[in-house]
Amino acid sequence: MYEQLKQECLEANLQLPKLGLVLYTFGNVSCADRARGVFAIKPSGVEYDRLTAEMIVIVDFAGRVVEGKMRPSSDTPTHAVLYREFDSIGGIVHTHSPYATAWAQARRAIPLYGTTHADHLPCAVPCTEWMADDRIRNDYETETGLQITDCFRSGQLNPREVEMVLVGGHGPFTWGKDAAKALYNARILEELARMALLTESVNPDAMPLKQSIIDKHYNRKHGANAYYGQN
Amino acid sequence: MYEQLKQECLEANLQLPKLGLVLYTFGNVSCADRARGVFAIKPSGVEYDRLTAEMIVIVDFAGRVVEGKMRPSSDTPTHAVLYREFDSIGGIVHTHSPYATAWAQARRAIPLYGTTHADHLPCAVPCTEWMADDRIRNDYETETGLQITDCFRSGQLNPREVEMVLVGGHGPFTWGKDAAKALYNARILEELARMALLTESVNPDAMPLKQSIIDKHYNRKHGANAYYGQN
Amino acid sequence: MYEQLKQECLEANLQLPKLGLVLYTFGNVSCADRARGVFAIKPSGVEYDRLTAEMIVIVDFAGRVVEGKMRPSSDTPTHAVLYREFDSIGGIVHTHSPYATAWAQARRAIPLYGTTHADHLPCAVPCTEWMADDRIRNDYETETGLQITDCFRSGQLNPREVEMVLVGGHGPFTWGKDAAKALYNARILEELARMALLTESVNPDAMPLKQSIIDKHYNRKHGANAYYGQN
Amino acid sequence: MYEQLKQECLEANLQLPKLGLVLYTFGNVSCADRARGVFAIKPSGVEYDRLTAEMIVIVDFAGRVVEGKMRPSSDTPTHAVLYREFDSIGGIVHTHSPYATAWAQARRAIPLYGTTHADHLPCAVPCTEWMADDRIRNDYETETGLQITDCFRSGQLNPREVEMVLVGGHGPFTWGKDAAKALYNARILEELARMALLTESVNPDAMPLKQSIIDKHYNRKHGANAYYGQN
Repeated sequence: MYEQLKQECLEANLQLPKLGLVLYTFGNVSCADRARGVFAIKPSGVEYDRLTAEMIVIVDFAGRVVEGKMRPSSDTPTHAVLYREFDSIGGIVHTHSPYATAWAQARRAIPLYGTTHADHLPCAVPCTEWMADDRIRNDYETETGLQITDCFRSGQLNPREVEMVLVGGHGPFTWGKDAAKALYNARILEELARMALLTESVNPDAMPLKQSIIDKHYNRKHGANAYYGQN
Repeated sequence: MYEQLKQECLEANLQLPKLGLVLYTFGNVSCADRARGVFAIKPSGVEYDRLTAEMIVIVDFAGRVVEGKMRPSSDTPTHAVLYREFDSIGGIVHTHSPYATAWAQARRAIPLYGTTHADHLPCAVPCTEWMADDRIRNDYETETGLQITDCFRSGQLNPREVEMVLVGGHGPFTWGKDAAKALYNARILEELARMALLTESVNPDAMPLKQSIIDKHYNRKHGANAYYGQN
Repeated sequence: MYEQLKQECLEANLQLPKLGLVLYTFGNVSCADRARGVFAIKPSGVEYDRLTAEMIVIVDFAGRVVEGKMRPSSDTPTHAVLYREFDSIGGIVHTHSPYATAWAQARRAIPLYGTTHADHLPCAVPCTEWMADDRIRNDYETETGLQITDCFRSGQLNPREVEMVLVGGHGPFTWGKDAAKALYNARILEELARMALLTESVNPDAMPLKQSIIDKHYNRKHGANAYYGQN
Repeated sequence: MYEQLKQECLEANLQLPKLGLVLYTFGNVSCADRARGVFAIKPSGVEYDRLTAEMIVIVDFAGRVVEGKMRPSSDTPTHAVLYREFDSIGGIVHTHSPYATAWAQARRAIPLYGTTHADHLPCAVPCTEWMADDRIRNDYETETGLQITDCFRSGQLNPREVEMVLVGGHGPFTWGKDAAKALYNARILEELARMALLTESVNPDAMPLKQSIIDKHYNRKHGANAYYGQN
């Protein structure tokens, strides 16, 4: 019944090691079917080279298993929150890719230093604080999702423009209209994180890019009069 | 009519991922046919593994499309300026390779620290300032080219000797007598950028190489009495 | 007689170069058969691509060769001490993987900066001091093992929880219930070492992760009510 | 007449890109036949994937071409000096491998920080000063060799113990009893250079390894009572 969704989810998860974003079981991808109110997600703790479409678990947006014999990723409640709160998104990726995770562990937003970054989002990559102790004691994975949506609300960020976040002390989450775009964003984020670290190594006093160049680059690709690409 | 030029341009663009210089669509190569007053360039936003010779766009040195159904790279006006102003060059490469881009984002010229660098050019790799706001509002991509040629004019640099530049806040452009040489320079620049960063990591007070060794190395390869190689 | 143990040991050693943890002969894996009171270990100084099952040496827990024509790894007495003192372990890995070795050479424990680390152990990765001169003059490789077990005893560390250590000035040792788990830990340690260095590069004042998040992550995977994975 | 020597030299040069030590034409290997008073060396400026045994040039220890139609490496006089002055060596490698070159460009000897280093040589990897101007004006490549041998003489270093050197502002040279050992040393040097840089990144105040551990490791592999390996 959910064969196609499971297949899409399988293929997206298999991209994680190919893109160099994961070791062993350090990451997961989900993809949603909003018409049916469900998403497909990787089972918990399974290595990518053993993964098959039948192992993929189907879950509703409340985080309840709808189909599948295996336990879904322990991060499933985080995905469920993001699908509920960010209604434009169709795919989510979580990894522990090393450069993005280093910024998350250092609890710093990634400054926007150049056009490579501005081509993808018009501001720094946000980073949440460590989770408060009462939230940790409650439902940790659901609270991780709420931390992200709170961060976007308080920072007045638009999840259609900013398709990535760092969870402080933990690692990156990215999303997009589908799993392919979320994967693309996970790879881009890792590159932006690496370039920003290299930039600060070259010049510890490097300044964020000035706003007029940010606007030019972001808008030539994403604005009303975008002229990058073929559409 | 431009089959051979398109084929050369296709093959040069396919070298970008093989040389490890690009992710996704982050770069482009053009190659000129000066006798016919045109150059061939990658279409905008197309991934390298989908690229075919028919997709390559033929453009004149004023930047007008001469042949091709797709929209050329958004950086086309920058290439056009460089072909107009630097009359010795036959190929241009633009990438966002991480080490060269880090120096561009840090807005620092790459110091000449050793013979690997002096074997290729006799001075630091220049870096432009951020573009002025009135230029950004005008024709951004044409102005990027003019920024580069202004930088060479004011710095009294010879584009036959210095076949590379960093655009501040953006990334590297390289060129050469043909696309193959421009690609070679793009790969060399990435290595020089990496080695210079490592050198400063080893010794934050590292000094640029002394002039007599620079002259010796540059001239044994490029001077009137060059004795490197087989010619 | 020990065919299966030798084969397991061979295959585990061949994983070292595949996991990118060794150059040339820079590492070794052993695996124990506690019922028979022996372990299998790589012969000394043999490159991985020449290694065969017959070359594997069988040694008892006192470090005496039981079977095999070649000289066992010079680190054999260290392995023997660890099998004697840590009675839960069935496999040991020693490498000179670059990031873990850098921390060992810098003589610093690897701080616990994030959940990737807390998913595997609940504290910093310990690092021993340089060995005292009288110990070096005695039986160096046996003393290396005793240094490790002393470090765990004085630090009140449980070798079932903390399956890795850095020997100051030397490099990492990891272990586990079998050779596969010890190899997994060697690869994880290298990643934790790299991420911690990147974290300090991003933020020289980075703080270790707070205890409540450490507890949450360590226990969701290893605690009495663990809910990560399929068991 | 020199077929076997040329073949050995070809194969050794082809190892350079496989070991990740060179880009394009950035390195060369020679191997000597002391009985016949000659060495074989790579032709100048030829890329590794075009190299054949017939292109290899045979040169005597005075640096004169004995056989071959191509111009030998521009570094040939440096190799000739080393064969004349270090009478125990049978192979020489020169590269611009990035980490070793970074230390050479920073003009710092590589401190001995750990046992990985002490397993190969009992002291820091020496680094020469920049060449004096009168030497540069003389015969640059011969003087590069003399700089190395002067450095060993003044530092009382034994070229059988220390089979590697950094030429300040330039890059590494390594040697050994044959080309295979010189290649091994080139790869090891790159790893030691990388580990030393990582060590200083982890701890800017890292101390060189204490002498008693250096002696133990160097001698267990190279001393009169060596017990590492199978001989």
